[in-house]
Amino acid sequence: MSKKSSTKDLSLSSNERLYIKNKSLFTPLKYRNLKPEGLKIYTFKAGFKKKFDDLLLIIFDKPINAATVYSKTSTPSAPIIWDKKFNKGKVRALIVNSGNANAHTGEKGIRIINDYVKHLTKLINCKKSEVLVSSTGVIGELFDPNLIIQNISNIFNQKTKGLFDAAKAIMTTDTYPKLGIKRIKIQNISFTIYGVAKGSGMIHPNMGTMLVYIFIDLALNKKILQKLLNNNLDNTFNSISTDGDTSTSDTLVLFSTESNKRKIDFNIINNYNKLNKSILELMSELSLKVVKDGEGISKLIKVNIQKSLSKRQAKNIGFAIVNSPLVKTAISGEDANWGRIIAAIGKTQEKIIQNKIKIYFGKNLVCENGAIYKKININKLDRYMKNKTIEISVTLNMGIINHTVFGNDLTHEYIRINSDYRS
Amino acid sequence: MSKKSSTKDLSLSSNERLYIKNKSLFTPLKYRNLKPEGLKIYTFKAGFKKKFDDLLLIIFDKPINAATVYSKTSTPSAPIIWDKKFNKGKVRALIVNSGNANAHTGEKGIRIINDYVKHLTKLINCKKSEVLVSSTGVIGELFDPNLIIQNISNIFNQKTKGLFDAAKAIMTTDTYPKLGIKRIKIQNISFTIYGVAKGSGMIHPNMGTMLVYIFIDLALNKKILQKLLNNNLDNTFNSISTDGDTSTSDTLVLFSTESNKRKIDFNIINNYNKLNKSILELMSELSLKVVKDGEGISKLIKVNIQKSLSKRQAKNIGFAIVNSPLVKTAISGEDANWGRIIAAIGKTQEKIIQNKIKIYFGKNLVCENGAIYKKININKLDRYMKNKTIEISVTLNMGIINHTVFGNDLTHEYIRINSDYRS
Repeated sequence: MSKKSSTKDLSLSSNERLYIKNKSLFTPLKYRNLKPEGLKIYTFKAGFKKKFDDLLLIIFDKPINAATVYSKTSTPSAPIIWDKKFNKGKVRALIVNSGNANAHTGEKGIRIINDYVKHLTKLINCKKSEVLVSSTGVIGELFDPNLIIQNISNIFNQKTKGLFDAAKAIMTTDTYPKLGIKRIKIQNISFTIYGVAKGSGMIHPNMGTMLVYIFIDLALNKKILQKLLNNNLDNTFNSISTDGDTSTSDTLVLFSTESNKRKIDFNIINNYNKLNKSILELMSELSLKVVKDGEGISKLIKVNIQKSLSKRQAKNIGFAIVNSPLVKTAISGEDANWGRIIAAIGKTQEKIIQNKIKIYFGKNLVCENGAIYKKININKLDRYMKNKTIEISVTLNMGIINHTVFGNDLTHEYIRINSDYRS
Repeated sequence: MSKKSSTKDLSLSSNERLYIKNKSLFTPLKYRNLKPEGLKIYTFKAGFKKKFDDLLLIIFDKPINAATVYSKTSTPSAPIIWDKKFNKGKVRALIVNSGNANAHTGEKGIRIINDYVKHLTKLINCKKSEVLVSSTGVIGELFDPNLIIQNISNIFNQKTKGLFDAAKAIMTTDTYPKLGIKRIKIQNISFTIYGVAKGSGMIHPNMGTMLVYIFIDLALNKKILQKLLNNNLDNTFNSISTDGDTSTSDTLVLFSTESNKRKIDFNIINNYNKLNKSILELMSELSLKVVKDGEGISKLIKVNIQKSLSKRQAKNIGFAIVNSPLVKTAISGEDANWGRIIAAIGKTQEKIIQNKIKIYFGKNLVCENGAIYKKININKLDRYMKNKTIEISVTLNMGIINHTVFGNDLTHEYIRINSDYRS
């Protein structure tokens, strides 16, 4: 960790609270504005959003290794098309703007990126293939590349910022910045992983409108980085959903900043497993921060599918439950309406054995032997439904696979946010 | 058509209007309370719902042919399990209760049905296999079969009712009764098809929480009846969605009441095609009445997918659009947010050619050549978005298949209805 890092705990300023109209129930209270070594962070008010910073530029001290995962959408945004085409795994700089997704903007969208990337490559003397770009916001609208060019031209006179500033600059409908940090020790060598994420609406497997950047300070090769990402994606970012909608822009990058000069041999399986576990924990933490900031959320919904035949079956059933508008509104109404869970399980058309299913809200059994559980303690159940996090466990009693997915409830606030997002 | 039929136009009584709190924009103004020949209709206040009739009994003059389609859910309700097990295509009576779905009630749910069916078979002297049963309402709760038994015991002293009464008695969260009628002439022989439907929430392909009963007065064999249903299901009830949720109870029955003694040879292809067209029209009309009564609807959304490679592709993309909460809330907010349509197309992961897509709201082109259409007339588009029905046309320019699906917007009213449905 850098000596320059701020050690003071931060929270959002009163000005920023004004910007963030809809405070989530899950908003973290304090942040630290860390400045990792090996990279410089700049943020700008470029004008994509009405107020506050909306442009992030990260410059690495030298070209570093990075692994990426993008949305599986068949209508990818221009930045995804661009990154996939040009980037080969070495990165000098990352540019992210928020407020305009540069998606479905055709050839012009690509030209916009070419313009501002060309400018940056001259400025910092790097190759086009060493710049990664992301954009998030409204789909289908062009913007003037000078919004970016004019701002980044000033970096040499500008103070560098921290990860808290970076997380703020990439927010759209997010109600709080999303950060995570892990400090790990393997074979007596300490190192650090930092993560920054954004995402609030359009969150569903295959990546939501999510941008996630994770920085590990050790030197790791591209192959290990990609393996770490791919290994942990399914249980983290691909196991959350806020609205079942998938974005055109989702991007997850794992950077190895090489600022930490110590060497650990990750061919030793034990070392690799420790690192993998830390990456999993950080990705879990960030993905939970995303789903907890679901638009209009009043409750987090955790769905455990237990004793299923396969992971595919468990995920299919889990997402059917957590994406069902009827389940989501029942939870929002604090109604333990397990009938809607049964209906959601049924609509998957998965082969299940109906009278083997057990359903719990928290530890409260509500259904077994193909029917309602006879001894439901209604008072206890009603009290449970008032919690901020509702845990639904569905035991299929068919196999040995367990899987957990996360989602949130559906509220008036979601309707309000999305009925007048653009106007 | 029966001479006994009421010829007076009916509308809901002021009392019924009170019951129906949330009048839909699409509520039909007038109804006729037809009494088709060949069957007797009874309705009762059995006590499943707080007020108004909630039990329907239809007795056919003799065992008649019927074809059925049921929900593909893997958690079917007791009535579906029962019907599939016992009914062989001959029907003397149909019993439907609304307010309790008798779903996920296990062996006890089946015993409940056995009890009331046994009573009915003695009363009207028919076989167990000649009774069809349906239930709609809350899932997972048992009820006392005497609620049904005590009421149906009185039929011989009871006045018969009409189709309007039948449609009312099977409503749950519906805001209006759903009826349709077709009078057809083939080879100078006139005959009639009547339909009654219910459905408002949990509407999605593979049948929503829908009960649909269609009566054709001609004598037709089971094979033709089933063919007529199967031929037309995909373009009607399986092309609507209100919330992407599928119910445990969906049932569609086509009865041939044989009250019309004339004979038409439907082996003549021309005759069959005319009949098939009428059935399609009636099923279209009823399915539209269902989707227009979607919970909390403020707009009907019609999505035309044009020039796609296959019907499967067209339906997949059409439903992704019409089920997207972000598209639904945009339409509710009268925002022609075509970017969300692009995102919804993308999330299907269907192979499309992004720069070939054209998107229209009504006749207003908003997107072509992979980007926004340059000459959008914003005033005209804004005016269009104020319509009750919003037609979205997506031309993929890849093949020759067109398909249309229907859905509705997502409003505060949907949240209100479903957050406190049970409490």
